[in-house]
Order: sequence, then structure tokens, then C-alpha cells
Amino acid sequence: MAATLHDVARIAGVSIKTVSNVINDYPHIRPTTKQRVLDAIAELDYRPNLSARSLRSGRTGVIGLAVPELSLSYFAELADAVIRSAERHGVTVLIEQTGGDRAREIELLTSPRRQLTDGLIFSALGMDSDDSEYLRVGYPLVLLGERIFGGPTDHVTMRNVDAARAATEHLIALGRRRIAVIGAHEGEVIGSAGLRLRGYREALEAAGIPFDPALIGYTTLWHRSNGADAMRALLASGVEFDAVFGLNDTLTLGAMRVLQEAGLRIPKDVAAIGFDDLDEAQYSLPTLTTIDPGREEIAETAVRVLLERIASTDLALPPREILADFRIVERESTAPAAA
Amino acid sequence: MAATLHDVARIAGVSIKTVSNVINDYPHIRPTTKQRVLDAIAELDYRPNLSARSLRSGRTGVIGLAVPELSLSYFAELADAVIRSAERHGVTVLIEQTGGDRAREIELLTSPRRQLTDGLIFSALGMDSDDSEYLRVGYPLVLLGERIFGGPTDHVTMRNVDAARAATEHLIALGRRRIAVIGAHEGEVIGSAGLRLRGYREALEAAGIPFDPALIGYTTLWHRSNGADAMRALLASGVEFDAVFGLNDTLTLGAMRVLQEAGLRIPKDVAAIGFDDLDEAQYSLPTLTTIDPGREEIAETAVRVLLERIASTDLALPPREILADFRIVERESTAPAAA
Repeated sequence: MAATLHDVARIAGVSIKTVSNVINDYPHIRPTTKQRVLDAIAELDYRPNLSARSLRSGRTGVIGLAVPELSLSYFAELADAVIRSAERHGVTVLIEQTGGDRAREIELLTSPRRQLTDGLIFSALGMDSDDSEYLRVGYPLVLLGERIFGGPTDHVTMRNVDAARAATEHLIALGRRRIAVIGAHEGEVIGSAGLRLRGYREALEAAGIPFDPALIGYTTLWHRSNGADAMRALLASGVEFDAVFGLNDTLTLGAMRVLQEAGLRIPKDVAAIGFDDLDEAQYSLPTLTTIDPGREEIAETAVRVLLERIASTDLALPPREILADFRIVERESTAPAAA
Repeated sequence: MAATLHDVARIAGVSIKTVSNVINDYPHIRPTTKQRVLDAIAELDYRPNLSARSLRSGRTGVIGLAVPELSLSYFAELADAVIRSAERHGVTVLIEQTGGDRAREIELLTSPRRQLTDGLIFSALGMDSDDSEYLRVGYPLVLLGERIFGGPTDHVTMRNVDAARAATEHLIALGRRRIAVIGAHEGEVIGSAGLRLRGYREALEAAGIPFDPALIGYTTLWHRSNGADAMRALLASGVEFDAVFGLNDTLTLGAMRVLQEAGLRIPKDVAAIGFDDLDEAQYSLPTLTTIDPGREEIAETAVRVLLERIASTDLALPPREILADFRIVERESTAPAAA
């Protein structure tokens, strides 16, 4: 006969409530107690009935997180931050990868898998504002990213334009005038690339520096290899520049490697600034000046807002757009231009 | 009234079978057809009944992947490889992070969430061989990692001892004699650190080089910061060395940064070799010689073996241990010692 909750409680020498708390992964359970319950569950091969449980409470204690690509360090570090934040709130995170593909993203939003979780944190990349009706789903949803604005759900995002303007102003303040960009997307207006390029152009304009299209390095993806390729193309074009703004850190780190292979010194000959403040940026040679876009704040806010929506009965609460604070993290890769 | 499968098929102008194929995320569906079905699903707000579906087929088309930490690049790149491999087989992956904590790992194995997937690929870190009975679960399970050997499930792993011996032999062949290690774990015999340290000692012994405990840098975790701290401690100790073997790439990259801050040249003064072949190792300065432990092969094999178990009715099939092939990837960080 299958073991019951009562059997587990009896073997572990705890109350049924305690067993239930362990199964529901509630925080603040003494580790030794938790271990006794887990040992009893294993000994009896007890399998809680998820459907019964979720019918009772109406909740699973699990939230979903969908990101484009875990092999991009930004999303791996974001996922880690969301998981740590969810843990503090006593909920578990199930992660899915979309590849940034529009059809996959739409499929994910309407997938029956959504019934397995209480809500979803969704970092969109393939969909755009024309698709925002797809976000009108029947479950709590928090949107991340820079692809859809003004949609029907809560949206937690970063100050892309302001932060990119600040990064460019930082280079201009150091006396740099010929600032290359790595990672632009042809024709993109919104999206991370489009918004960050706009911030760059605003900073140039404010400083009276003419925009030179020859300084813009286009890439499709934002991996190190894309940054390296774009920098090789810039160097081959013969265009002169004294600084580079990589639209994310991995692009910038790939570009820095190519600059150094070409015998250019960073920051003396070319100053470099990235965007993301990855862990890696503290250990590269030179260390990378970058924008911290508020990743921890974004993760914490997204989890908090999603849990509020899950707990709320007020369906009329209007969608909110919440912007994280950014800051420039100055390291070795930027310094004043030589006189 | 709730929309039905028939409504979706009618609106999309396709057969019910095609709608079902899209919902089940089968491969080889024409993108335009898939999009029509997804649009119809969105228009009708159709929600397939997962429980009914999984009762019919007995399968969900979803597999789980549990890893210690996505912020460690090795696991992010492994997760990406598993997802890409699963995609080729037409299944979706749900990822969970355990933090490498034993109690969390045991909880995950017995969690009701396991009913949501057809099977689990589990990269253990906190559990050890004494816990192998916890792996006797009622669903298909493939174990990864180096913490549990001889357990009751299929196990896909890497040749840790052989690969670490080869890494050390590579340094010895270049004329290096005083080889520091970064990332050892005090008292560990199995586990990645224990096995790789064993390979290091075997290579020294074969070459007649005495083992010097003063050359071993201990860390708790394997992040860049741990590698940097361990290298600072080695330098502060005054011990002399002409090479460093970092037990993973992130440790080694952290250690390299500290060596260069101290004015030591890599590879001239100190040669460096890592373990993992992360994408980052191709772009660091210098690029990092490392062990490719067969991550892609491990991911592909784990998915294939798990799907075989899910499809198989032969419960008596004995557990298999499958070892991936490794290779040394030579880059700039290793070169012959000066005469």
C-alpha cells in the first residue's frame, strides 16, 4: 500500500503540518527536522500527490522563468539572481530557454506547462510590441527585457537609453571623441541594441560630436565571438577610433581581445566600456569598466511583483512599468586620453 | 464556453492532429503552419488540459535538468548543451538549481514536481556515495557529476583522473617542475576536486617529481574570486612555482589575473592550464590552455540515455556508467619553460 503523509509524520516523529511544510518547501524549517522528514519520505518512498495538493491550495509554490539563452552570461547570472530571490520568498523556480525565437516564445506562453507553475517571469527577445496581445494570458506574468513596452502586464526593465548615454558621456569626459560601438542591430529602434544606440547618439549630440556611421559595428548575436568579429571588421576598415562602447560585456571582452592582438593598448590607445557588470568583468586584463544595469534589483523586483500578482485578488490592478537603477562601475579599461 | 481542440483546428484551417503536434512541440512542423496554430490558440485563448494529455500518452514531452549553480559558467554551458540536444530530440527541458546543497538535492529527487516531467538529468554536488539509495526513484533518472559512483542509475561522467593527469603531464613535458594547484578541497577523495588532484599526483609520481603540499591551493567554491584568493595566498606564502593547474577554468582565470597583477608573465614565468574549455578561455589574455572534458558529448549522451529509459519497458536493464572522451586544447597560456 502506498505510504501516506501520516506514515511520514510518524516515522519522522513530527506533525503532519511539519511534513507538509517540508514538502511545500517553506523557509524557516530547522535543517535537522527537514532532514528527518526527507529521510522518512525516502525510506517510505512517499510520493505526494501534486494535483491534489495544487487543487487544495490552488498554488504549486513554483514559478517559471523563461530566458533566451543561458550560455549568455547575462542570462545565467540573471537566472541565478531570480532563483536566489525566489528562495528568500520560499518558492522554487523552473527555468526554460527560448533561444530568443518568436515562435518558441509564443508557444511557451500558451503551453500547458504553464499550469505547472503559479506564474511566469518572461524575458522576451524574439517577440516585439506588435505581439503584445500574446501577453494577455490567464495567469500572473511579469515581463522582462526591452522588446515590448506598454503591454498588458507588469514589466521590470532597465534604463537602457540613460545608461548608454552615461557610458558614452563617461568616455567623452575622458577626452575620447572617436567612439566605436560594437553590437548594433541593423534597423533596430527598440530592443537592447536599439535603445543603447539611441543613448550613445544622444550623448554625442549633447557634446557636439558628429555621429559617424563608420564607427558602428553590427552583430547578430551578442557572444564574445560576435564582439571579436565586429572588432576585426572595424580594424580592417581602417576607421580611426580612441574608444569602444560594447553594447554588452561579452561583446566587449571579445573585442578587447582582438584589439590587444592587434597591438593596441587598453585604455591608452583605446578605452573600452561594456554593459552588464558580469562577474568576468572584474577578472579580465584589463578589468572592464561597465554599466551595472541593476540586475539584482530587476530579479528581486520581478519575483516580488509576480508573487504580489499571484496573491492578489484585485484583477483590475493596472500593469506597472518598473525601472531599475543603474550605475557606472569604473575599472582599468577606461582612462583619460593621452594629451 | 472554453475553446476546444476542434475550434483551434477550424480557425487555423488544419487537422486536429496538426494542432496536437504543435501543442506537443513535435519537430518537423512547417513554421508557417505552426504559427497559424499558435495564432489560433492565442485568439481563442485555448488552454490544453495537461493532465488529460499526460494521462492519455503517459508522457509530458518534458524532461528535468538539475544543476548546482547556473552562475558557474560550466553549468550554464552544460545546461545550454542539454537544451540544444533535447531540442533535436523534440523534448523540452525544465531546469532547477540546487545550490549544491545535499538537503535540497534530496528534496528535489522526491519532490512532487517530478510528476511534471518524464525523467530527470541530475548533476549531483552535495550528495555523495553514501546517499546513493536516494537515487532509487520511481522515474527515469540519469546522474551526472563525480560525487556518486556505482549507484543504481545510469551515470554519464568525464575522465577526471585521466584528464587531470594529462593536464599535468602537458606542463611537465614543457619543462615545468613546480606545479601549483588551485581549487583543491581539503580531505576530498572523490568529487571533481579529489579526482583531479589524484590525476595530478599520479602524473608527478610517474615523472619522479615529489609532491609538495605547499603548492596546493584550497578553495571552498570554484568561482573566479576563489581562484584569485587562492593565488594571492600562494604568492603570499612565498612558495616558488613555474606552473599552475586550476581545477576548473573560472578558478584559473581568477588566478591568472592575480599572477599578472603581481607582475608575473604567463606563460613565461608561470604556465597555466585549466579544466572545462569554457567559451571565455578563447578570449582571455592570454588565451587559456585547458581540458575539454567532453561537455557536448556528456549532454548528448545524457539526453539520449534518458530518452531510452523513458521509452524502454525493460526495467531490468542494468545501470550503465558512460565516460566521455577528453582532449587537451593548447592555447597561449602554456609554453616551454625558459632554458
